[in-house]
Amino acid sequence: MNIKISGIGYYLPDTIETAVELSKKINKSEEWIISRTGVKERRVSSIDVDEMGALAAKDALKDVEGKPDLILNASGVGKQVIPDTSVFFQKKLGYEGIPSFTIHATCLSFLVALNVAANFIEQNTYKKILIISSDRGTRGRNYNEPESAALLGDAAAAIVVEKSREDEQSKLLDFSMNTWPSGSSLTEVRGGGTNLHPHDENTTFDDNLFSMNGPMIYKMARKTVYEQIQKDLRNHSLSPKDIDLLIPHQASGLAVKAYSKFGGFDKSKVVNIISTTGNCVAASIPLALALAYNQKQFKRGDLLYFVGTGAGLSVASTLLRY
Amino acid sequence: MNIKISGIGYYLPDTIETAVELSKKINKSEEWIISRTGVKERRVSSIDVDEMGALAAKDALKDVEGKPDLILNASGVGKQVIPDTSVFFQKKLGYEGIPSFTIHATCLSFLVALNVAANFIEQNTYKKILIISSDRGTRGRNYNEPESAALLGDAAAAIVVEKSREDEQSKLLDFSMNTWPSGSSLTEVRGGGTNLHPHDENTTFDDNLFSMNGPMIYKMARKTVYEQIQKDLRNHSLSPKDIDLLIPHQASGLAVKAYSKFGGFDKSKVVNIISTTGNCVAASIPLALALAYNQKQFKRGDLLYFVGTGAGLSVASTLLRY
Repeated sequence: MNIKISGIGYYLPDTIETAVELSKKINKSEEWIISRTGVKERRVSSIDVDEMGALAAKDALKDVEGKPDLILNASGVGKQVIPDTSVFFQKKLGYEGIPSFTIHATCLSFLVALNVAANFIEQNTYKKILIISSDRGTRGRNYNEPESAALLGDAAAAIVVEKSREDEQSKLLDFSMNTWPSGSSLTEVRGGGTNLHPHDENTTFDDNLFSMNGPMIYKMARKTVYEQIQKDLRNHSLSPKDIDLLIPHQASGLAVKAYSKFGGFDKSKVVNIISTTGNCVAASIPLALALAYNQKQFKRGDLLYFVGTGAGLSVASTLLRY
Repeated sequence: MNIKISGIGYYLPDTIETAVELSKKINKSEEWIISRTGVKERRVSSIDVDEMGALAAKDALKDVEGKPDLILNASGVGKQVIPDTSVFFQKKLGYEGIPSFTIHATCLSFLVALNVAANFIEQNTYKKILIISSDRGTRGRNYNEPESAALLGDAAAAIVVEKSREDEQSKLLDFSMNTWPSGSSLTEVRGGGTNLHPHDENTTFDDNLFSMNGPMIYKMARKTVYEQIQKDLRNHSLSPKDIDLLIPHQASGLAVKAYSKFGGFDKSKVVNIISTTGNCVAASIPLALALAYNQKQFKRGDLLYFVGTGAGLSVASTLLRY
C-alpha cells in the first residue's frame, strides 16, 4: 500500500520518577527494579491523555500542510468510557467536524491503526490521517504488584499518514496480527467496564489497576513473536541484516533484548528506550519511532520493521518502507 | 467497494423490563416514560457483553462457511478496560489465533466498523470479517436521570462481511462521518478512564453512570443529520423513495420519528424498534438490521441507508446495496 508517514511527533512529561523514588512506593530496591524491568526512570504526567496526545499531534503536524481529514485514537486506556478519546484529542486541537474514532488493541493499537489508515488511503477513503497514541499508565499502577508498577510510564506520540507520490518508494509492505484469547488473563485491567463496574460490590480495589503476569507473557510471547519474525522475513525474502531499524514495543527490558538475543537482529538496529521511558502501553511503539526519528536513526527509503505484543494475547508486526 | 453482508444475527435477553416496572425505579409514571422516550419495554441482560456478543455472532455465522479471519468489536462500552472486548468475543466463540481488535465510536461503532471492514475486503487484507456490537447499557443507568435511564436497553447483534462476486450487485456505496467535539459533554460516561479513575477522590457516583442531555442532542443532531441525508441523496442522485429501507440508530422515539417527519422518508420504510428494545447503544443499528432481516423487510439488491448519531457528537451514514 503506497502510503508514507509525513509527520512524526511526541510528548514526554517533564516529571521524571527514578527507580530510587519508585523503590519507596513498591517496597523494592533500586537494583531489584532495574534488574527485573530494565526501567531506570519513567515520566509521570500531570496532564491527562487528551492534552498529552494533542501536544504530540501538534508536534507531528508541524511540517504537514493543512488539517487531517481523519483522527484516530490508538491508545491503550481512554480518558473516559464515553465519548471515545479521539473526540477529546480533536477538542484539544481546536478542530470541529473532522471524523474521529478509536482503535483499541491495547499495546498494539498504533500498529493496527497504521494498517487501518493504510487501507483507507489506498482506497482514497481518507487522505491525511492523524494517528495519536497517548497513555498514562502510571494512573493504573498497582504498588502491590511491583514488577508491573515498575514497568509503566507515561507518554504520547503521533504520526500523520498520507499517500506516497509515484516518485516516492514509501509504502506499507506488510501487516500481520494474531490474537490468542488463551492469554487473555495475562495482562488485564479487569474493572471499568460492564463486568466489574465501579459500583459493583464484587469489584475489588485491584480490579481497577493494571495486572500482568510478566513471566507467563514472556514465555508465551517469545515463541509466537519469534515465529512471526521468521514468517515475515521469509515472505519478503529478507534476512535480519536487510532491516534498517527494528522498532519493537517496549514491553520490558527482557522483551526488547530478546530481539537481538534470539531474533538475530544486531543490537544497534533495535530501538531500545525502555530504560528511560518504561513501558508506555500503546504509546511505546510510536514513541520509539519518534525518538529514533529525532536522533536521525533512519532516513527516507529505509526498511523499518515494527513488532510487538499486546493484551489478548496478541502479536502484530508491520514492515514499512519509510 | 464490492462487499456483501453474508450473515446477520442478534441476541436479545429474555428478561423484559416494562415501563411500569421501571417507573418505580426512576420515580416517574409509565405515561411519562413512554411519552418522553418512546420506550414501552427494554431487555435486561444477566450475562455479560462478551457472552451476549458471542450468541449474536453464532447466529450470524450459522449460514456462513468457515471461520472469520478478523473479529471486530464494535460496541459502545467494553467488558473491561484491558484487554479490549474483541478478545473475549473470540474466547467465548472458542477460537484461537484470529486477529481481533476494537473500533469505538460509541453508538456509531457498527457503521465505522462496517466501513473499515469494506476497506479491508476491497484491499484483500481480510476476507471474512465478523463484526459484533454488544451493549449492556442497563449496567450504566442513572436512576436520578430518568430520561436516559428509560432509554437504555441491552442487546447484541453481529454481521459477517465478505467480498461480493462479480455477478452480485452487493456493495458499500458510501460512508460519511463527522465529529463535533463542541458536543462532547452531551453524552458521557465520565469515569472509568484516566481522567476520573475509580480510585480518584474527585470521582462521583454519577461519573460512573450514563449521562445525556437529550434536548440539546436532538437540537444539534437534527440539523446535522438532515444536512447529511440531503448531501448523501444529492451525491447519489437519489430521492427518499429510492431508498428501500432506512435503518437509523434508535437514539430515542423522537429521533427515529424525525426521519419520516422531517427527513421525507415514508414511515413504513424507517425501521423503528425502539418501543420494544430501547436505545441499545452501538447494538441498536445492527439489531434494527437483524430484526428487519428476520421479518423479511428487505432482500438482495435492495438499497439500505443507515444513519445515526453518537457521543462526540458524531453523525455517520452508510449507503449499502444489500
